[in-house]
Amino acid sequence: MKKIVLITSGGSGSRTNLNIPKQFVELKGKPLLMYSFNTFLKYSPDIEFVLVLADNQISDWAKLCEKQQFNINHKVVAGGPTRFHSVKNGLKLVEKGVLVAIHDGARPLVSLETISRVFNFAERYGNAIPSIDIAESVRMVENVHNSPIERTKLKIIQTPQCFKSDIIKDAYNQNYDEKFTDDATVLESRGHKIFLTEGNPENIKITTAIDFKIAETLLPKLKN
Amino acid sequence: MKKIVLITSGGSGSRTNLNIPKQFVELKGKPLLMYSFNTFLKYSPDIEFVLVLADNQISDWAKLCEKQQFNINHKVVAGGPTRFHSVKNGLKLVEKGVLVAIHDGARPLVSLETISRVFNFAERYGNAIPSIDIAESVRMVENVHNSPIERTKLKIIQTPQCFKSDIIKDAYNQNYDEKFTDDATVLESRGHKIFLTEGNPENIKITTAIDFKIAETLLPKLKN
Repeated sequence: MKKIVLITSGGSGSRTNLNIPKQFVELKGKPLLMYSFNTFLKYSPDIEFVLVLADNQISDWAKLCEKQQFNINHKVVAGGPTRFHSVKNGLKLVEKGVLVAIHDGARPLVSLETISRVFNFAERYGNAIPSIDIAESVRMVENVHNSPIERTKLKIIQTPQCFKSDIIKDAYNQNYDEKFTDDATVLESRGHKIFLTEGNPENIKITTAIDFKIAETLLPKLKN
Repeated sequence: MKKIVLITSGGSGSRTNLNIPKQFVELKGKPLLMYSFNTFLKYSPDIEFVLVLADNQISDWAKLCEKQQFNINHKVVAGGPTRFHSVKNGLKLVEKGVLVAIHDGARPLVSLETISRVFNFAERYGNAIPSIDIAESVRMVENVHNSPIERTKLKIIQTPQCFKSDIIKDAYNQNYDEKFTDDATVLESRGHKIFLTEGNPENIKITTAIDFKIAETLLPKLKN
């Protein structure tokens, strides 16, 4: 099936204490957002890109692409007030009958293997959500009580979350609910079973300034 | 109340792919294990140390201390087959009527603030367990089913876990149960309520070789 990547990048980056949106910040001389493009393109030279950006970042992105001589063909669409609305806007540019991987632009360290797995499993099962084990002890807090959770039962969820486009486009026709923290929860709300695949531990979400430093450390470990 | 630190360091370090136990590996020129000693001593110059080491690492540790001119006074005791047995052995050297912080030697980046909080809260409530928020989406897997967990309800658990020594010595008189993943679960099994305090995000557990690189990155961010 034809493959499309929808990269979401609407964040303001306020938690990084940087003056520019975090997805535009350079990691070893290259803006964060460009890493994901390069890895998906390496996975499949025919893959198509839709990029969702905050409205006020679109012209800066165009300038950045020119400066960086970044010439990977991609459509750009303006995001909405929440991640849900941003993805919904992006999905309008995705046709039916294809596979779409929805990826967080703040995860530059996704591996080729993770991408390959989500596309393969989504073609078979309709959806595929990358996940990794959790290395630490975890407790659940409810009101004033807290109790241990068996950590072997827990999975940290990553992106790209991959879907047959018909299914995820339909799911995004629902009204927004604040329990929609990612695409899997949107799909699940339509009664679909969620299929977990293996992610890669380097595939961290960059949220704070220190995460940039960690990403620089992890970058050479990726075999992309 | 008098304060004692029990540092556990029985791990073989096999997951780091290094020839020596990970707690002896140097982080910026200093063995991992020595960081925790220094931070606790900075918190309180009168604090006493008990170090639990695998039996076959005790003489190597003595040599390392000599080489590094590491002269912080501490008792050394041999560990057992599991973490539970190692802590139990260490607690035999801890008297009643004191506060004891049980710390994982593979966490060199504990902050002074975390240490201060666990001692203060344990003196008031009998126990204090440092914890931090989780930044990612999490799902729970049970058999073939998986479902989202509200991540605001989840806490990642760290060390030092701090206790009134009477209470934790009593709890370690139980028979070993494989559900004992940390000291909090041992105490809880005796019917005690667990008190969570705030940890610090840099306080990672070093498990793999890449964690050393991350720790090097985080080290300058600590204000110890």
